[in-house]
Amino acid sequence: MGGDRIEPFSKAEHEGRWERGRRLMRAAELDALLLTSEANFRYVTGFHSQTWQSPTRPRYVVLPLDGAPVAVVPQSNLQGMRAADVVGDVRTWPAPRPEDDGVTLVAEALKACARRFGAIGAELGPESRLGMPAGDFLRLVDMVAPVAVKDGSAVMRALRMVKSPAEVARIGRIAGIVSDAFEALPARLASGETERQVARALQADIILRGAEKTPYVVLESGPGGYGRTNMGPTDRALEPGDLLFIDTGSTYDGYWCDYDRHFAIGRPWESAARAHDVVYRATDAGLAAVRPGARASDLWRAMAGVLAEAGDAGSVVGRMGHGLGLNITEPPSLTEHDHTVLAPGMVVTIEPSMSYRAAELPDAPARLMVHEENVLVTEDGSKLLSRRAPREIPVVG
Amino acid sequence: MGGDRIEPFSKAEHEGRWERGRRLMRAAELDALLLTSEANFRYVTGFHSQTWQSPTRPRYVVLPLDGAPVAVVPQSNLQGMRAADVVGDVRTWPAPRPEDDGVTLVAEALKACARRFGAIGAELGPESRLGMPAGDFLRLVDMVAPVAVKDGSAVMRALRMVKSPAEVARIGRIAGIVSDAFEALPARLASGETERQVARALQADIILRGAEKTPYVVLESGPGGYGRTNMGPTDRALEPGDLLFIDTGSTYDGYWCDYDRHFAIGRPWESAARAHDVVYRATDAGLAAVRPGARASDLWRAMAGVLAEAGDAGSVVGRMGHGLGLNITEPPSLTEHDHTVLAPGMVVTIEPSMSYRAAELPDAPARLMVHEENVLVTEDGSKLLSRRAPREIPVVG
Repeated sequence: MGGDRIEPFSKAEHEGRWERGRRLMRAAELDALLLTSEANFRYVTGFHSQTWQSPTRPRYVVLPLDGAPVAVVPQSNLQGMRAADVVGDVRTWPAPRPEDDGVTLVAEALKACARRFGAIGAELGPESRLGMPAGDFLRLVDMVAPVAVKDGSAVMRALRMVKSPAEVARIGRIAGIVSDAFEALPARLASGETERQVARALQADIILRGAEKTPYVVLESGPGGYGRTNMGPTDRALEPGDLLFIDTGSTYDGYWCDYDRHFAIGRPWESAARAHDVVYRATDAGLAAVRPGARASDLWRAMAGVLAEAGDAGSVVGRMGHGLGLNITEPPSLTEHDHTVLAPGMVVTIEPSMSYRAAELPDAPARLMVHEENVLVTEDGSKLLSRRAPREIPVVG
Repeated sequence: MGGDRIEPFSKAEHEGRWERGRRLMRAAELDALLLTSEANFRYVTGFHSQTWQSPTRPRYVVLPLDGAPVAVVPQSNLQGMRAADVVGDVRTWPAPRPEDDGVTLVAEALKACARRFGAIGAELGPESRLGMPAGDFLRLVDMVAPVAVKDGSAVMRALRMVKSPAEVARIGRIAGIVSDAFEALPARLASGETERQVARALQADIILRGAEKTPYVVLESGPGGYGRTNMGPTDRALEPGDLLFIDTGSTYDGYWCDYDRHFAIGRPWESAARAHDVVYRATDAGLAAVRPGARASDLWRAMAGVLAEAGDAGSVVGRMGHGLGLNITEPPSLTEHDHTVLAPGMVVTIEPSMSYRAAELPDAPARLMVHEENVLVTEDGSKLLSRRAPREIPVVG
């Protein structure tokens, strides 16, 4: 299962990333980038290993403005770097070595970079994380002085935001796998099953259909609706009258999909059906607004307009979509204040949400309704990567 | 499947963690700890959410020497913190808000801590990662001055290294699930299947047997042996004569197991069988050395002795085991130079490895042989949590 084989990324693809990165570095007046997080390291080096799950061994790549990238990795990753066959200059140390876990080697690589602006970019900005101990980072800053270490995350943000066809193929593949699994789910769902059992069955199905991992599988269920969107599954058993919400971020060759679906156990409540209708229309409005030249805030406004008309009580999600790629969430954010201009090759989630009161349960806290789809910006508009959710909530049993 | 229900961690368990933490903080002369990584945050607050997969929203908890902990989380996590019902003082902001993603709230919480030593401990040391943007961390350091921000990771290291019975139950559960899946695997394995197909089937089986996640599933195969231990699965098809190596870190309620198994497709090669025997005996020696009072380096020496007798050519793994818990790898490291003294409640992996040449393929690069088991240090010795690997390599087909 899982469709045709997707070819590994070519060396030319990686070299293209370096060249685009260098243009952005020049504009940002950076002599080099130092990258340590899994997504950025993989983007630049093509290196993939599940050992990122362990915080013991850091990995570093230096991308200079002039000259070839230098990777500094634990000895145990040397063969993996050779297999990726992207970065030629790979230096190693016998990790773990707490007294110097690659830091001296990285400082040497950084000091060898041609000095033009006297500044190096590191992963310091919003939504970024260092993939190395912060204490080692502070030592490194001292070691490379007088060269300054500045925020380089804006370069990586701009670089990774526009996906290549090969990247889009991966996101499309995992989105398709998950659509197949979501569509097959109602036939397997039964009242009496626990959220955890449903999550297990769905995860196993997504894996067997060809996904690499299912790191994010959230289930929420409750009588007529749900009030959280990021906590379950729990041992709660499904009952007639429940609305079941499932949101999954699954991966294929490192790339994520991220979208949700709803299922009603028996006839859905009136309040849920109404909220579902509003948020479905808000999703349509968001999807219709996706085209090159539109701003992230335009998409937000298109969705917010539909929700406001329906008297949305406001939700707590904080945005109505985001970029998608080697991370489950990437810039831009679909908010009122993010004016990032969409360009062909960007992939975003369209994720409107509303808060509502269930007339059937007047004393219950507010319910949430969140829809999500994954969409590619094309030359002349957009292309849905997830298969659009059904217009009406699918009913089970 | 999956055995009896394991009760959620009690409030008393968390309060006990805080109290032990405070004793360690006093000794380290820290007025408070600031924790942001998933494992440390979860350990102190009981909060679990799959939203940690997204780097967009950071979470912070301040554990003061005097007074109750303060959590600072995105609004969207408030319900999850209430559900965990461990930390009473939860402060929120509408994330994402790149201009101030919780930093001002955290600075206020830190500045309100009683000042005794004038220092705060953060996650700076070996094997630690910040769960917040490094730029925000540097701003925070300035905001809390003149209070100094020092390394607090040694406190968390010591605190988390000794597991409670409730923690051990979780590691034991996932180790048992994976043992069941490993033992069921030969009946499903067939020559001609690809590494990726085998990995999918195993992952799905582990999930269906009750695991939460299978984030780490490495497969390596090759004629008679393997030369890497952290890269696969690939699309390579299994062939008669192959040795298949599978290493998995899977989780139950946040806690990991981490061990490997071998399978021969047809009769194993002589060189592999010999290496398997040596490393099996090294594992036995490591397991036999586990008892309270032994040092991590003693375990290393017990294993290294067996390997040296057999003429080990040296491997690249860098250590022969490590701690295990909320991370797949935790301190201590079983190396020659880590003299951590084992105490009851510690859980470690016993993971000897050797490099060898296959006489059957004299021109091939060196092969690796890595065994791994998970073991608890008890009052009077040790208890195996994984089910011991078979003495001889299981043969398939």
